[in-house]
Amino acid sequence: MTEKFDDIDDLDPTPEGDLSLQTVCMPADTNPNGNIFAGWLMSQMDLAGAIKAQEIARGSVTTVSSGNMVFLRPVPVGATISCHTKVLEVGRSSIQVEVEVWLRQPATQEFYKVTDGTFIFVAIDGNGNTRAIS
Amino acid sequence: MTEKFDDIDDLDPTPEGDLSLQTVCMPADTNPNGNIFAGWLMSQMDLAGAIKAQEIARGSVTTVSSGNMVFLRPVPVGATISCHTKVLEVGRSSIQVEVEVWLRQPATQEFYKVTDGTFIFVAIDGNGNTRAIS
Amino acid sequence: MTEKFDDIDDLDPTPEGDLSLQTVCMPADTNPNGNIFAGWLMSQMDLAGAIKAQEIARGSVTTVSSGNMVFLRPVPVGATISCHTKVLEVGRSSIQVEVEVWLRQPATQEFYKVTDGTFIFVAIDGNGNTRAIS
Amino acid sequence: MTEKFDDIDDLDPTPEGDLSLQTVCMPADTNPNGNIFAGWLMSQMDLAGAIKAQEIARGSVTTVSSGNMVFLRPVPVGATISCHTKVLEVGRSSIQVEVEVWLRQPATQEFYKVTDGTFIFVAIDGNGNTRAIS
Amino acid sequence: MTEKFDDIDDLDPTPEGDLSLQTVCMPADTNPNGNIFAGWLMSQMDLAGAIKAQEIARGSVTTVSSGNMVFLRPVPVGATISCHTKVLEVGRSSIQVEVEVWLRQPATQEFYKVTDGTFIFVAIDGNGNTRAIS
Amino acid sequence: MTEKFDDIDDLDPTPEGDLSLQTVCMPADTNPNGNIFAGWLMSQMDLAGAIKAQEIARGSVTTVSSGNMVFLRPVPVGATISCHTKVLEVGRSSIQVEVEVWLRQPATQEFYKVTDGTFIFVAIDGNGNTRAIS
Repeated sequence: MTEKFDDIDDLDPTPEGDLSLQTVCMPADTNPNGNIFAGWLMSQMDLAGAIKAQEIARGSVTTVSSGNMVFLRPVPVGATISCHTKVLEVGRSSIQVEVEVWLRQPATQEFYKVTDGTFIFVAIDGNGNTRAIS
Repeated sequence: MTEKFDDIDDLDPTPEGDLSLQTVCMPADTNPNGNIFAGWLMSQMDLAGAIKAQEIARGSVTTVSSGNMVFLRPVPVGATISCHTKVLEVGRSSIQVEVEVWLRQPATQEFYKVTDGTFIFVAIDGNGNTRAIS
Repeated sequence: MTEKFDDIDDLDPTPEGDLSLQTVCMPADTNPNGNIFAGWLMSQMDLAGAIKAQEIARGSVTTVSSGNMVFLRPVPVGATISCHTKVLEVGRSSIQVEVEVWLRQPATQEFYKVTDGTFIFVAIDGNGNTRAIS
Repeated sequence: MTEKFDDIDDLDPTPEGDLSLQTVCMPADTNPNGNIFAGWLMSQMDLAGAIKAQEIARGSVTTVSSGNMVFLRPVPVGATISCHTKVLEVGRSSIQVEVEVWLRQPATQEFYKVTDGTFIFVAIDGNGNTRAIS
Repeated sequence: MTEKFDDIDDLDPTPEGDLSLQTVCMPADTNPNGNIFAGWLMSQMDLAGAIKAQEIARGSVTTVSSGNMVFLRPVPVGATISCHTKVLEVGRSSIQVEVEVWLRQPATQEFYKVTDGTFIFVAIDGNGNTRAIS
Repeated sequence: MTEKFDDIDDLDPTPEGDLSLQTVCMPADTNPNGNIFAGWLMSQMDLAGAIKAQEIARGSVTTVSSGNMVFLRPVPVGATISCHTKVLEVGRSSIQVEVEVWLRQPATQEFYKVTDGTFIFVAIDGNGNTRAIS
């Protein structure tokens, strides 16, 4: 039982992986409810994963898929969001990246996880064709 | 067996559900490769699902989750994208919506499916709290 | 007299033409009064007309003119706007399109016309020169 | 005959009215053809007219209508556009403003008129209601 | 003493230089505090300076440096900002431009200086290489 | 002599301070020359500095000044930019932050400094008034 609570305490204590993207949530990114628009968060996750995949591919990549994402807490304007990434698998031309989104509240400096998801990218050449990762 | 292949040809001959969002892919929505940025497509799917969920909720909704999405073909600048939506399930306060993205090429008027995904929304009141769908 | 009232009731009961563009009015599209910026609505009408004109031209088009538009009601953040289009005339290289803008309120699902206008487009080739519509 | 040519030479030799809005045409404002999107130009004209109308209204205004506009020449990325405005008529709460759009090409410093249109605005109070212009 | 007060009265009574950029501060340009984002103001100053430098260079320019800027008053949504520019020095390929930002409040038509800064641009050719100003 | 080489080796070998903002340079952020717009870089620096200042202020901040910045190399589309920040001084209500911008090229993974600048922020309360940093 205590272990269970310990487990809960340990649940996501810190982000996993490298900080690949970090920015401020601005009013231009809000939805009509005044919080940050989920679609904008998804697009930041896609960019964060691409930054990491480009490091592996040493060149341009394109998004092939995004996995399931759950958005449990509203993201307020003014918060800082941090996308941490970890490479899960590298294929002949594909790279699978786990992306975690963490949020920092300016007033409290509280820092917690907002969502995560797995993205797959493929390395592409200058003509947009898939290329092998050397 | 042949029928099976025929079935594959017939796979997704037309969009399922209602046309909830349609717009043009603009240069401002491109990624550095010159094609449309996957994150932008995901944000349009989120908006399309929200439009449909608001019809059911008769009011504001917020995104709770997005399911797996596969992006098989590049989306070129100038194409029209159409997000078709179908309500899969309505809970006490949640609405599950399937979103299909179709693309029309201006020059050929060719029309084909780009991706699909399932989004879950919850109805919220003016204070951002979950509310029952009446 | 009764006819007159009936006429009023019948005034714009449903949109005319095809649904060419539909999206959500976001906070990023507001003017300093908190409602949706008229210039943004005009740009959506231009895109909607271009989507329809491209279907006729089977290729790129450019805007040649926009007709008079009257904006009678404020467009609130969170509403869905729908641009319906109808081809009025097709010339050698030009296409005249009527664009109606309808608005749906999330809370009430009330649906009414906001404005309309006529746009003229010409078909262009890859060098931006006017071309005949085949 | 000479007069006719003189007339042509004199046609729009300089902008009429005050310079109310001026900015640079950026890649983010282009349409898929690589030139500036007509809808963006229309939104700049709306803003320019509002700037002038606010001077008369000494407060917020909202757009009531826009008149016919003809776009005869493509607007290239990198050009400077200048919106000149002239008040045509002031009513109890409405202001009619003529807006001319002029373009300057960086390389040649050539300066010519792109389009014009008439906009009507009404003065509004803090609740968005029409108010008299004092 | 009187002189001192006179000096204060004379302090920045009117903008210096030409009006190079003017636009409206929109909600999309706000920071999380609800006022206009300093970074957006800086980007407008950069554009204003470039407009002026292009007139001298008769072609494209790129920004080489920006000087110190002090932002003493918040810039509210709905205000008109005016960037006035004055060429300070022209080198073989460089142009130094002073940019002043002035603000007009819609309700009071009060007009005052917000900030200023000095930008240096260089003329570039079609390949992005520095070129002499002829 | 050796010192000189040592100096060169020491010249910005790695970023100083914490990684406060990181993102991808997108086509929507380009200037008409096809490279990234200096004003956009300045706005990212302002955001990066604000993220760091908010950590110190434990709440909202507003920009008071930005120091001299030199942009020596063009920033290409597709590069990742990283803004590193270091607090230089904390006053009663002000925070001085040094911001360095580093760029990573996708193809070569080359990583170099693009510019730096010093920003001053003040802590503000919910009404936008300066407050002491506790």
